Amino acid sequence: MAYCDWTKAELAAEKAAVAAHFDALKAQALKLNMARGKPGKEQLDLVSGILTVIQTPEDCQVDGIDARNYGELTGLPSAKALWADILGCKPEECFIGGNASLTLMYDTISKAYTHGLLHSETPWCKLDTVKWLCPSPGYDRHFKVTESFGFELITVPMTPTGPDMDMVEELVKDPAVKGMWCVPKYSNPDGIIYSDETIDRIAHLKPAAPDFTLMWDNAYCIHEFEGEFVPFRDMLTLCREAGNPDMVFEFASTSKVTLPGAGVSVMAASVANQKYMEKLLSIQTISYDKVNALRHVRYLKDKAHTLELMQKHAKILAPKFRCVLDSLDREIAPLGIAQWERPKGGYFVSVNTAPGLARRTLALCKEAGVVMTGAGATFPYGVDPQDSNIRIAPSLPPVGELEQAMDVFCTSLKLAALEQLGA
Amino acid sequence: MAYCDWTKAELAAEKAAVAAHFDALKAQALKLNMARGKPGKEQLDLVSGILTVIQTPEDCQVDGIDARNYGELTGLPSAKALWADILGCKPEECFIGGNASLTLMYDTISKAYTHGLLHSETPWCKLDTVKWLCPSPGYDRHFKVTESFGFELITVPMTPTGPDMDMVEELVKDPAVKGMWCVPKYSNPDGIIYSDETIDRIAHLKPAAPDFTLMWDNAYCIHEFEGEFVPFRDMLTLCREAGNPDMVFEFASTSKVTLPGAGVSVMAASVANQKYMEKLLSIQTISYDKVNALRHVRYLKDKAHTLELMQKHAKILAPKFRCVLDSLDREIAPLGIAQWERPKGGYFVSVNTAPGLARRTLALCKEAGVVMTGAGATFPYGVDPQDSNIRIAPSLPPVGELEQAMDVFCTSLKLAALEQLGA
Repeated sequence: MAYCDWTKAELAAEKAAVAAHFDALKAQALKLNMARGKPGKEQLDLVSGILTVIQTPEDCQVDGIDARNYGELTGLPSAKALWADILGCKPEECFIGGNASLTLMYDTISKAYTHGLLHSETPWCKLDTVKWLCPSPGYDRHFKVTESFGFELITVPMTPTGPDMDMVEELVKDPAVKGMWCVPKYSNPDGIIYSDETIDRIAHLKPAAPDFTLMWDNAYCIHEFEGEFVPFRDMLTLCREAGNPDMVFEFASTSKVTLPGAGVSVMAASVANQKYMEKLLSIQTISYDKVNALRHVRYLKDKAHTLELMQKHAKILAPKFRCVLDSLDREIAPLGIAQWERPKGGYFVSVNTAPGLARRTLALCKEAGVVMTGAGATFPYGVDPQDSNIRIAPSLPPVGELEQAMDVFCTSLKLAALEQLGA
Repeated sequence: MAYCDWTKAELAAEKAAVAAHFDALKAQALKLNMARGKPGKEQLDLVSGILTVIQTPEDCQVDGIDARNYGELTGLPSAKALWADILGCKPEECFIGGNASLTLMYDTISKAYTHGLLHSETPWCKLDTVKWLCPSPGYDRHFKVTESFGFELITVPMTPTGPDMDMVEELVKDPAVKGMWCVPKYSNPDGIIYSDETIDRIAHLKPAAPDFTLMWDNAYCIHEFEGEFVPFRDMLTLCREAGNPDMVFEFASTSKVTLPGAGVSVMAASVANQKYMEKLLSIQTISYDKVNALRHVRYLKDKAHTLELMQKHAKILAPKFRCVLDSLDREIAPLGIAQWERPKGGYFVSVNTAPGLARRTLALCKEAGVVMTGAGATFPYGVDPQDSNIRIAPSLPPVGELEQAMDVFCTSLKLAALEQLGA
């Protein structure tokens, strides 16, 4: 029965019990972390083969290139082929970066700001106002990139099929609106897959700004933890077919495929965009780490082999997500104080509490030794207008610790709700 | 005897002989490259141990950190300790980057432009004019970074003791002058070591701009190819003692210590600068590749051990530089058509031809299949006012090829000189 239907006396008794349990948890002086989509040790150990796949000078030769030396700014042809296979685009549309796709995204925005993009009339730093669409809840690091350049962030609500496209289509009529963040598959944090209709409408956008840019972060493109691989369509092709060939920059990385701190990233875009960006990037670096890119080529081989590896990650991740969802179903569902998504991939469970409970819940969690993503982080400027969304990242802790952490989380959420109800 | 003292008949005969030799070289259809300071295969093979120094999950644990996972934006403590040992600064003054110090330099300038530096009154993109001091001849990639942001590049002549400091001290009185490129040890391309007096005068500069920034690229700080290691003073300490603690950013990398394409870079700066930059860099990336940083820590160990490795590089490089200098001494010195430095470290031999010969010499080299750094590249905007400076990079080709390449170079230079003399 939902809390709202309980009697005052029942609520008071419940609060006493919940508070006592909270104190008992606090007394355990836990130190648990569900803040970030960080793979756990078991996942890291799974890919140890990447540490030894290149051992000799001969191993470093590929595509007629010595991967150890300077050169090949845009990446090894074989690394481009691997990413083209995974993303469904062409090898020549792939630019191979360093260990962080976030850096490629930042550098794209930064170069738009300092130099302008292919179709820019002027560098964005010369404009009075740059507006940017932020489907929310979304990824805090995305929002911070555009915030740090002083863009005006516009919240676009997420729906079960992706961003609210009626609103997006309306907003892009403003020439000051220069782009949009998108995580099309297993969106961060909701775990939503954009519907075909949403994706088609995005590809067919008619923005007023000639340099409107989709930042298409396909971070979780092969990251199912439940069920088979879900195919996705190549956004570069869709945009090209819709007459917007240069509108999209797609990003991905192996941070959650091989090693989070030592993976390989990719930026996929039209050949015209690649040529333009290459000129700017050639000032910033001579080349990215090709030895590590080659480790990935040798270790991952191709899409099919990579998907086999992802099924092994899934076996490690699935019990962790099950633990989170089981706790929520058992402890919270009957009380009517929160709702949540049931994703089949990605790295998060997105919980929406009754309005006004998120901040207090997370403060209580912290008090009891459980660190979570900060309240509001999933909204532009870190401000959740409903104070409702909480992102749970279950990947790092072992299941045993996760059970403790979820006990703390559910107890904190109940306590916050009971406080709000004046119990 | 110098060409200028030859008779017309002697010059005509010489020209016929040189032209015939040039044609014979051209007929060989050579494909040789002395364009870039790229280590050769023997140097790459020398450090193969770095490919296998980390093999297991246990090998990835250091400083209480799992190097494989996300985190530690500023770098592994043990990597900071290694760089502090090499540079003579404090570990907390070191920020460990990815495989390219050029990227750290670019990002520093880019952030000055987009956000401003610690003591900036405004981001530089909001200023009408940013001026930048470029000791020349210098490193083309440095100049291009500042050129790409639209700065006004001011040429400062190099002297045998470093940049012309009378001129520098005068120029920094202009508040629009925001910084200076410096390669203090074995400068690119001259191979000059800044004198103690020059360095002291730089540290004691009193620039009008509160955010005047020394880009102190210590690229060749341990890169002797002849003789013992030449100690250098810590510029961070010198600037601090001179009352300019935040004026300097120092850069270095292992690109010419381990693998050019897969090394580790460092940015050293005051703790106040580090804290400021960390905030900006935390938007750009979660962390750089710590597994590769750890490979370097394990493989290089400390300064003493790294210097031993550099002596092995020296044994490979010394004969290459000797080949270049011997060719010049034998073929060019008597003719009085060029002068050159005799560096004991770094990666270049800087040749100054009689005015007006550089471009033509390099065009002839190219015709005969030898690619060199483009004429003018060592000056701002790629324009050498004397058309005189040529950068020779002897590190890549084996000695056998180098002898051929130097034959082409000396022949081309003679031919250019004879053409100019109207022979």
